[in-house]
Amino acid sequence: MILDIVVPALDKSRLNEIIHQINNKTKPLGALGDLEKIASQLALIQQNEEHNQNNQGIEIKLSKPSILVFAGDHGIAAQGVSIAPSEVTQQMVLNFLAGGAAINCFCLANDIDFKIIDAGIKTEITPTPENLIVQRIQAGTQDFSITSAMSVEQANQAIQLGFVLTQSIIDQGCNLIGFGEMGIANTSSASALLSAFTGIEVKETVGLGTGISNQQLTTKLTCIEKALARLSVTEMKPDEILAELGGFEIAQIVGAILAAAQRQKTIVIDGFIVTVAALIATRIQANALDYMIFSHSGDEKAHQTVLGELNAKPLLKLGLRLGEGTGAALAMPLIKCAAEFFNNMATFDSAAVEKVV
Amino acid sequence: MILDIVVPALDKSRLNEIIHQINNKTKPLGALGDLEKIASQLALIQQNEEHNQNNQGIEIKLSKPSILVFAGDHGIAAQGVSIAPSEVTQQMVLNFLAGGAAINCFCLANDIDFKIIDAGIKTEITPTPENLIVQRIQAGTQDFSITSAMSVEQANQAIQLGFVLTQSIIDQGCNLIGFGEMGIANTSSASALLSAFTGIEVKETVGLGTGISNQQLTTKLTCIEKALARLSVTEMKPDEILAELGGFEIAQIVGAILAAAQRQKTIVIDGFIVTVAALIATRIQANALDYMIFSHSGDEKAHQTVLGELNAKPLLKLGLRLGEGTGAALAMPLIKCAAEFFNNMATFDSAAVEKVV
Repeated sequence: MILDIVVPALDKSRLNEIIHQINNKTKPLGALGDLEKIASQLALIQQNEEHNQNNQGIEIKLSKPSILVFAGDHGIAAQGVSIAPSEVTQQMVLNFLAGGAAINCFCLANDIDFKIIDAGIKTEITPTPENLIVQRIQAGTQDFSITSAMSVEQANQAIQLGFVLTQSIIDQGCNLIGFGEMGIANTSSASALLSAFTGIEVKETVGLGTGISNQQLTTKLTCIEKALARLSVTEMKPDEILAELGGFEIAQIVGAILAAAQRQKTIVIDGFIVTVAALIATRIQANALDYMIFSHSGDEKAHQTVLGELNAKPLLKLGLRLGEGTGAALAMPLIKCAAEFFNNMATFDSAAVEKVV
Repeated sequence: MILDIVVPALDKSRLNEIIHQINNKTKPLGALGDLEKIASQLALIQQNEEHNQNNQGIEIKLSKPSILVFAGDHGIAAQGVSIAPSEVTQQMVLNFLAGGAAINCFCLANDIDFKIIDAGIKTEITPTPENLIVQRIQAGTQDFSITSAMSVEQANQAIQLGFVLTQSIIDQGCNLIGFGEMGIANTSSASALLSAFTGIEVKETVGLGTGISNQQLTTKLTCIEKALARLSVTEMKPDEILAELGGFEIAQIVGAILAAAQRQKTIVIDGFIVTVAALIATRIQANALDYMIFSHSGDEKAHQTVLGELNAKPLLKLGLRLGEGTGAALAMPLIKCAAEFFNNMATFDSAAVEKVV
């Protein structure tokens, strides 16, 4: 059972040494702001890697930065809670495969390896394209406003599949891994999950998604409240809640995050939906939070809410509301720059610059 | 006279066409937030370039992204208005030349060409290192709390040198150019200039710089107020104000910005000091604003004030307070991503994705 795995706590015993290493760089104390926090976190995560066993200063090595985008469809889409019909999920997966989506452009520009996973879209793509990773649970979830989105077994299967895939990506040498999603109506699942896991009222967790009307927003709110009304969430386990509210891609991302955290790799969290998956991962293993970098704060109001629940300070605020891992891809160069200054910036001593603070 | 140059207004007649091009990309309307605004601006700036004369869609080509860092010393440093003595300016220039500063790391990570200019540091570096551009006006400015920082001739010479250097960088093929600065005590000059050019009270334009004490802050405030008290700024021309308050690196950056704007290249503005130089450039040629991208909002309170004066919405807010062009360097990948999606993202038609909004 994935839910029984143990994510090790980040060993913070060398934090002072790391901060000392940063403070000796040729810059005023704290002058690199948020990048200094990222550098500290990266150094803590990597302190035990083989290349850091020499008892000299820690070095951060980012290898094979990757973004995995999980796609799935949602039965709730039939209620008209999204700007687009479910068919668009498959169309966008084909677009990802052809290299035409925003995430493709950003991964190309930032030298990030990109992978797309069919976690359960409504219409299977046949024949299977070579660059599509197929781990479909089913042709979309059930409508969670009426019934369980999936069985508990399916939820666990999805978590397991995300977990194992991420292990294999890590085995191929990746140690910086971002997650994204595509799935028409998946903000409905994410809002429902956020309310279920936190007790925050639905009116605070729903939003306009990629741009629905006020009438659609009311429908979305009603559907989610109806679903939550049939559940006793405080008595349910994370996999049971995921099974009730979906979706396949969200459950796979939860598993993927847990795998990266268990292996102590740096995880880059994208927008609202992935941040909700991150929250769920921390409810399964609280230590998972130590390995997460939050890429951005998006336009969806509830994204800020879930970031607040995680006490997360995201790097970017660009008014994005796209998902796909786009925020994670845009934050990767900042993470690379944090590593670069940590590793290669001169110290006051080495550069013969007077240390004045 | 540089002050007589004319910066052409950005031709916005094709803006609707550009917005249409962006809105046809496979994403919900506006879902890429601030990057869509950057893409629009880049497209407008580049619409008249040779490769866009084919009457097909506009393509953005970013070539030889560069950052020029201008260094200069300030007589006002003798008053103890900075955390560091003037000697640190030269030490940091040597650090830039050796590749050990934060800006070197960020330029390396983001594939940006980096150049460092001695615009008038206190102690000349001899023999002249091969990679140092020497256009010294003098060994530091005079203390502007007592007398004019420089003569009006020197101010114009500095503007001219920054202008001509930037022209030559553009002639070498660069069309995306960021500016940075190094100069102990140069936030004092920048604050004084901001107050002089806007009439905003000094207590609103001074700040802690890279981290001075409250007592130093009081000294800084008093020095600037003393300088402004002797001037009738409303009757003075921009070069005259620059001559009074300094510094050599700021004046060279003003000229550099004007050159890039006149040649209709994209300008990336860094922190507080460079943003003040940008404000001055717009007071000389208002159209210069059309070519500027504001990289970040830093920790210095007055940076937000001057951004407000320019009605600028910066891309990043990372708590930086370093200067050196570091914010500009960190924003460049976002600008590249904006160009990348504008050029290469599929349209609803080309990708056969249903357009739903």
